[in-house]
Amino acid sequence: MNDTIVALATAQGVSAIAVIRLSGKDCIDIVQKVFKGKNLQQQPSHTLHFGTIYDDKKVIDEVLVSLFKEPNSFTKENCIEISCHGSPVIIKEIIKVLLKKGARLAEPGEFTKRAFLNGRFDLAQAEAVADLINAETDNARQAALNQMRGGFSKEINRLREELIHFASLIELELDFGEEDVEFAKRDDLRYLILKIQTYLQSLIDSFDQGNVIKNGVPTVIAGKPNAGKSTLLNTLLNEERAIVSDIAGTTRDVIEDEVILGGINFRFIDTAGLRETQDVIEAIGVERTKERMKKASLIIYLFDLTQASLSEIEEQEKELVSLSIPFIKVGNKMDKADKSLLSKLEEKNFLFISAANKTNIQQLKEKILSYFQVQSVKTGDVMVTNIRHYQNLLQTNEALQRVLDGMDQEITGDFLAMDIRQALHYLGEITGTITTDDLLDNIFSKFCIGK
Amino acid sequence: MNDTIVALATAQGVSAIAVIRLSGKDCIDIVQKVFKGKNLQQQPSHTLHFGTIYDDKKVIDEVLVSLFKEPNSFTKENCIEISCHGSPVIIKEIIKVLLKKGARLAEPGEFTKRAFLNGRFDLAQAEAVADLINAETDNARQAALNQMRGGFSKEINRLREELIHFASLIELELDFGEEDVEFAKRDDLRYLILKIQTYLQSLIDSFDQGNVIKNGVPTVIAGKPNAGKSTLLNTLLNEERAIVSDIAGTTRDVIEDEVILGGINFRFIDTAGLRETQDVIEAIGVERTKERMKKASLIIYLFDLTQASLSEIEEQEKELVSLSIPFIKVGNKMDKADKSLLSKLEEKNFLFISAANKTNIQQLKEKILSYFQVQSVKTGDVMVTNIRHYQNLLQTNEALQRVLDGMDQEITGDFLAMDIRQALHYLGEITGTITTDDLLDNIFSKFCIGK
Repeated sequence: MNDTIVALATAQGVSAIAVIRLSGKDCIDIVQKVFKGKNLQQQPSHTLHFGTIYDDKKVIDEVLVSLFKEPNSFTKENCIEISCHGSPVIIKEIIKVLLKKGARLAEPGEFTKRAFLNGRFDLAQAEAVADLINAETDNARQAALNQMRGGFSKEINRLREELIHFASLIELELDFGEEDVEFAKRDDLRYLILKIQTYLQSLIDSFDQGNVIKNGVPTVIAGKPNAGKSTLLNTLLNEERAIVSDIAGTTRDVIEDEVILGGINFRFIDTAGLRETQDVIEAIGVERTKERMKKASLIIYLFDLTQASLSEIEEQEKELVSLSIPFIKVGNKMDKADKSLLSKLEEKNFLFISAANKTNIQQLKEKILSYFQVQSVKTGDVMVTNIRHYQNLLQTNEALQRVLDGMDQEITGDFLAMDIRQALHYLGEITGTITTDDLLDNIFSKFCIGK
Repeated sequence: MNDTIVALATAQGVSAIAVIRLSGKDCIDIVQKVFKGKNLQQQPSHTLHFGTIYDDKKVIDEVLVSLFKEPNSFTKENCIEISCHGSPVIIKEIIKVLLKKGARLAEPGEFTKRAFLNGRFDLAQAEAVADLINAETDNARQAALNQMRGGFSKEINRLREELIHFASLIELELDFGEEDVEFAKRDDLRYLILKIQTYLQSLIDSFDQGNVIKNGVPTVIAGKPNAGKSTLLNTLLNEERAIVSDIAGTTRDVIEDEVILGGINFRFIDTAGLRETQDVIEAIGVERTKERMKKASLIIYLFDLTQASLSEIEEQEKELVSLSIPFIKVGNKMDKADKSLLSKLEEKNFLFISAANKTNIQQLKEKILSYFQVQSVKTGDVMVTNIRHYQNLLQTNEALQRVLDGMDQEITGDFLAMDIRQALHYLGEITGTITTDDLLDNIFSKFCIGK
């Protein structure tokens, strides 16, 4: 782990500035080899230095170098950030010359992994760094920040302490096992576990909301060709993202975009119309639509009120019900619709809109929101947003349940102790007190490069 | 100009870190209002400080603040760079709270404009900052860097000095005008101007190459439907950017991408096939293709050797010639072509390829390159890459020509002096010794935000 890693830390693309980050014992020496300016080794930590980056005799760019000396850096190693002009060519040339001088390209998440391995924070906090970067709503940002700042880890550690207390009572019994002494009254133990479980359950329950906050709600806009799906998408996004034309089958690719309503991130997916088609490319689009619909949390199904008859609509409704996914039935082009059809559909709980004229769009938004009630997250709130943590909490709970069941069946303390150790193991994996290379690789490979 | 400006300085998008930049007398006070950490006013310039950014009681993010105190900053004003986690939500929240505390959003190029107005560099150098950021090849980067570091400005100033010397000789004459004295011998003056013009011309001549280096070469791939344009584009780009299918008319949108061959940036434009079509959307594509072809520096025209007859090919050739743009005639699908057709086309200087099998692609690349010979740019090389500079150099040259013509026609010194002043004006506009608000607005509005 002593080698020096390098990566672009800012987003790809043309911009005023870009930041190239290095970490490792030798990173100051490596940068010095290509840097004309002050002698960086002689400068104090947390200082900035202007200079030029050279490749042999070629000047690559004028840059600012930020110097962080171990252990006072993100990774607790020597770190350097090179702030250069934000041209992809410059970034490439600078990284190339640093590689030539002994650095190697960082793997995804490798800076944060080093920070974790060097004890800057625990695993749950390290994971929150990625969540923070990927936060798409202010709620998601706040939830990730709270977790990064250790709120969640504190709760897990509290649970661990309670369990260790419980375990110590059982282990004490084991030491005196053959004497058949019960140091811990079974009723007291049972009470302790139920208390821990109640607390555990509140964390587990927070995942429903945490997951919606972190990952958004996949919402599909579906319907027959020309029902007005692209127009509705555009109206909801307030901009022209999809090509809208009056020719059936215009939308070939699945256009995905997001809109934030009431603090939740909805993904609206506009899809190729669901018609039988001879067009090869369009057929691929129809197939994708069906896949998306199956993965959706909510379907907004658009009916073209000017085209469909009542019996056709009822047939489509049956198909929708068969998917077993919540859906909203929306009749589009209400301004041009037949009044008698409208009154019949009203009984069937249809919402009428005109996507083109932006009629009743607010009502539709409210109806969508009513499916997902989310409170806003405050500084310090604790919730589970990570599926790995959620699964470990469930496994902890199951192990504790086995302890309870074991006590009911009056099994011996050494068997109870096994399940308690198991519970401790699952909790320990959350914060990384217990960890494996596979687990770490799996976690950090999902990070972006440069973090 | 004393207010504090703020902008994202790094590229948009999810990334490890993002940098928000502020400049202005009060920027340290403004940041301090939302920053929990050290007292920034009391810290020395060029130092880095960890802390948290707050909006009232809400923690937005943990950040690193870079401090630059006037005049030791890019703008020569107090400057701060906030390095935060690279989530668009965090960036938005931090900028929002800074606006609330008294900063305002920077206009495009406003940081560089302030740097220019505060005398950090001249106008040509400031313009090179934008060119550097937008450099898409190493040659373009080097040309811009040389200009930013003052190489070009030095040449312009040398020209100005020569002209000022010449002007002083003429002005001296004017002081003694009524006495009809010639202080400057007309032949000496003529020699001096010719010398300046020779030098001016070498700068003007460098623009041909400079423009290609800076802006690349717009190259269009055109041809009838199914000629294999998308396949060729993909082969040249070595990746699947365009949807390739065997259905005529697949490519509706103009897909633009770039490839760097021999240091030049070629833009390959794959276009909807040039057929008469009833499809409304496709028809728009055909229209765009024709527009693109007219703007191209080179057309790569693809003939489908398996479809076209000799007479059809000859007809298309005539159309091509009528565009008066250099073109390369490329016969595609050579492996499936009729041998007798091949031998006839060989006489007509056709290049045969198979885009799908990647046959003769190297030959095509070389043929493309032969149209644009560009030397590689070295540190210190001076060339004109900016059309504004080019036009001003031309105007300087014209004014000098009027001086020469005036001397031939023996007009009086005061008229000569007017043209010389005009020439000095045009040169002065290049480096910004002479400038107007309109000119500055025009230049800096083309910069990106945050620079």
